[in-house]
Amino acid sequence: MTRPTNALVTPLLTDLYQITMAYGYWKSRRHDVPAVFDLFFRHHPFNGEFTIFAGLEEVLRFLDSFHFKADDCAFLKRQLPDADPAFFDWLGQIDASALTVYGVLEGTVVFPRIPLLRVEGPLAVVQLLETALLTLVNYASLVATNAARFRLAAGADKLLMEFGLRRAQGPDGAVSASLYCYMGGFDATSNVAAARLFDIPVKGTMAHSFIQSFSAQDGVTHLPMADSRGQIGDFAAAVSHYHNLLGIEQGNAGEMAAFIAYAQAFPRQFLALVDTYDALYSGIPNFLCVALALKQFGYAPIGIRLDSGDLAHLSGEARRMFAECYQQTGIDMGHLSIVASNDINESVLHSLNSQGHAIDAFGIGTHLVTCQAQPALGCVYKLVEINGRPRIKLSQDADKVTIPGRKHAFRLIGQAGFPLLDLMLPVNEPAPQPGHRLLCRNPFAETQRVFVTPSRVQPLHHCMWQGGRVTPAVAPNAARQHVLAQLSLLRPDHLRPTNPTPYKVSVSPGLYEFLHRLWQEEAPVRQMA
Amino acid sequence: MTRPTNALVTPLLTDLYQITMAYGYWKSRRHDVPAVFDLFFRHHPFNGEFTIFAGLEEVLRFLDSFHFKADDCAFLKRQLPDADPAFFDWLGQIDASALTVYGVLEGTVVFPRIPLLRVEGPLAVVQLLETALLTLVNYASLVATNAARFRLAAGADKLLMEFGLRRAQGPDGAVSASLYCYMGGFDATSNVAAARLFDIPVKGTMAHSFIQSFSAQDGVTHLPMADSRGQIGDFAAAVSHYHNLLGIEQGNAGEMAAFIAYAQAFPRQFLALVDTYDALYSGIPNFLCVALALKQFGYAPIGIRLDSGDLAHLSGEARRMFAECYQQTGIDMGHLSIVASNDINESVLHSLNSQGHAIDAFGIGTHLVTCQAQPALGCVYKLVEINGRPRIKLSQDADKVTIPGRKHAFRLIGQAGFPLLDLMLPVNEPAPQPGHRLLCRNPFAETQRVFVTPSRVQPLHHCMWQGGRVTPAVAPNAARQHVLAQLSLLRPDHLRPTNPTPYKVSVSPGLYEFLHRLWQEEAPVRQMA
Repeated sequence: MTRPTNALVTPLLTDLYQITMAYGYWKSRRHDVPAVFDLFFRHHPFNGEFTIFAGLEEVLRFLDSFHFKADDCAFLKRQLPDADPAFFDWLGQIDASALTVYGVLEGTVVFPRIPLLRVEGPLAVVQLLETALLTLVNYASLVATNAARFRLAAGADKLLMEFGLRRAQGPDGAVSASLYCYMGGFDATSNVAAARLFDIPVKGTMAHSFIQSFSAQDGVTHLPMADSRGQIGDFAAAVSHYHNLLGIEQGNAGEMAAFIAYAQAFPRQFLALVDTYDALYSGIPNFLCVALALKQFGYAPIGIRLDSGDLAHLSGEARRMFAECYQQTGIDMGHLSIVASNDINESVLHSLNSQGHAIDAFGIGTHLVTCQAQPALGCVYKLVEINGRPRIKLSQDADKVTIPGRKHAFRLIGQAGFPLLDLMLPVNEPAPQPGHRLLCRNPFAETQRVFVTPSRVQPLHHCMWQGGRVTPAVAPNAARQHVLAQLSLLRPDHLRPTNPTPYKVSVSPGLYEFLHRLWQEEAPVRQMA
Repeated sequence: MTRPTNALVTPLLTDLYQITMAYGYWKSRRHDVPAVFDLFFRHHPFNGEFTIFAGLEEVLRFLDSFHFKADDCAFLKRQLPDADPAFFDWLGQIDASALTVYGVLEGTVVFPRIPLLRVEGPLAVVQLLETALLTLVNYASLVATNAARFRLAAGADKLLMEFGLRRAQGPDGAVSASLYCYMGGFDATSNVAAARLFDIPVKGTMAHSFIQSFSAQDGVTHLPMADSRGQIGDFAAAVSHYHNLLGIEQGNAGEMAAFIAYAQAFPRQFLALVDTYDALYSGIPNFLCVALALKQFGYAPIGIRLDSGDLAHLSGEARRMFAECYQQTGIDMGHLSIVASNDINESVLHSLNSQGHAIDAFGIGTHLVTCQAQPALGCVYKLVEINGRPRIKLSQDADKVTIPGRKHAFRLIGQAGFPLLDLMLPVNEPAPQPGHRLLCRNPFAETQRVFVTPSRVQPLHHCMWQGGRVTPAVAPNAARQHVLAQLSLLRPDHLRPTNPTPYKVSVSPGLYEFLHRLWQEEAPVRQMA
């Protein structure tokens, strides 16, 4: 049995009404009626036209461990003292073995109304899963999508690091963010626990407090230091030599002491935070002295991090100072990285691109993990069939009407290799075939129809669970590759940050007719007088 | 030993740079230097002028369990292969026994720059706590503050229920939200796991899927039902009687069957979700028939829930229909509750108040728990003293300059009973005394000074930890009472939603002078030519 990463994820991680409804079903002897629920969303987040589906692996682990323990049942019994005690006996013996789950793969680019999961099984059991499934999918998909947007904004050649742990919504908001940002296209996290749990790359060097903890009065710690070939030398003296050579007059002595201490601790990982006092006037000159000394000792310095100020301007100035240093000393330190990390969001990345900058890597925290631009995704879980009869959820808002029945879905690929649209059909209609022309209809707009002759057809739904787990776990790195590959195949106008083109989600003519007939039958006709 | 509620909260729930900095300190033999860090925020969230401090209990549990296990050390060693192995031996034997922590009480109303926690101890150990402390305080305080704002907006007499689990940022975002929304003034949560973990009230009845799962074709389930005195009767027949009596012609039969089934399952807890088909035309008439039958069987029906549409209008219409039913039947069902739960945020509450409405209770999810209006609080953790020497963190942005040294803080209460301002002093300056006049200065604006003669003086800081836990755990309900009591004592203009008056946070003249002297000494004077 696999368990969810977070021990808080148990069958009790649910809204009380799932339990009371289960009791209502049980009491009216309907708990075992076969039911089908779809999990889907209605609108992309972030005013975008794509979403990354994530959270599947945790959903499968949840199913695998789904079981109300004796003390869970005892707790619920105390909450519902009037309920028939036999209900809790029933509750204590259910698990996910009577369920079948179809869904899209972890990391799939998905569109509104396509079922991301279709859960089939006894009504009360399927109902009891609702809240946990939504919790596991909503934020995972939201933050993976946000990360993918940051990746598109930064460009494929930038190193992107997730630094959000301290500002995330709870410890697990952070741990989930680290995983799903990686899946969405980030390169690494600062979060050690997440790195360990999910085997994803972890990065980090120093904060301002490290620099501040050294003051001029402390002086430099002279420690014996081995060069890359094992020869012991006086590193602080070498730094002092370059300080004189570069003719530096200014700069904070405590900062210099801190850089020397850090370089001696991590000679192969020297990336200096340069803005504690003044990046241009103190941090970068101090960095260069220490970097040159490291180079003399046979180590390659990594670069600098800027955490405040005008990142476009400062990065350009830093690059200019690196070039000047090379001209002055003739010492080639190779490409020095410039990392930026000050309150970066998606539009800052676009703005930096349009201004021009010399940044190689971004450390991104708050806005990435809390999804400032839209902090929740609205996945819902709706009953679409019961006892073999398709059900529709009506609403005066057409947007909230559900598409009834068991459906499968396909991505139709055109001649140019781009996906053309996603098509939903009742499971009893056959899958579309390459080379065969189909009429595809907008489910809600009568006149929006298109004939499509797909060159390729990708089935979107796969059986994930049938009494037990069917698909093996997908490693985060594989899901990440899947995300990046799909984004590179999507028409760029669907991905652009401003006014992206909506991607079409269609239904077959049969499903269109059925949906509208059921809608007519169920919707009350009001009387006005 | 107490452990954090969330098993993910371990010493590895940290940014990698805390580990690399600890190694840097250790390597330069500074890891045991006595250091003091302040945890504080600079700006209130939500454009407000107050914040609720929360997360203390989890912080103390984290300290109590703070220990790097052998496999944690082994993992870190693999991440830092060049580091001296003796460092990991040191890491494996540290704990929080060398620390002293002062802080404000759980649920205290707090203001910018006042240290919420002051952590004293060996530099490297205090550094290693940073990320986890921020993670545990930031979201807890943010969401507690959000909940308090919703409470102020709704008024003291409304029942407020947190329904955010499915849309929260991860499972623990949800569990934390449930706890801290309760602390901030909510009455209950829908989250069963949180209710159990923290012993807070849990509520919930039914969702649309329950209603939808019954269709007209199923007919009504006739179950024998006992009235409140144990007499068995035909409940469905009683409902049918009232259906005729009220002369109802319309209404969805599946919905009616669902209401009957639910009432039979929970005769004492009948609160019907009435908007699945049409609240006014179907849901409320169906509800009334079932409610009247329950009354006949000796049970008091609870009321209805509205989850869509114009809540002000629908609640008013519902109230009118309840009154009409009483006129028509002469049967007094007492006050029937109207619960509303459709995408409610703080400004919806204000808008409902100004329109007028008949709602008794609100179920609030997404916007409450994800803090849509501002999804992160910016608490920081800054070095303020090392080896007995106060340190200042400079920035070209005066707003980011820190207030150096070990400080205690007091709330000065005026004659009218309202807090006048919060005052910070170096710990070696004596506490203010009631009846004694003091000069209080804005730390950053030279001319903003005020003489205060407090009637009462409340110390804000208490010793929470001294080698071990000093204060007992505060129950969520006690913290909640503390929050509500303080809010009722704060001047209303600090609490109002639009353009609230800032509350003053001051320093003593001695601290003012010291801060500005250190700032002058440390800030580089740039040369321009």
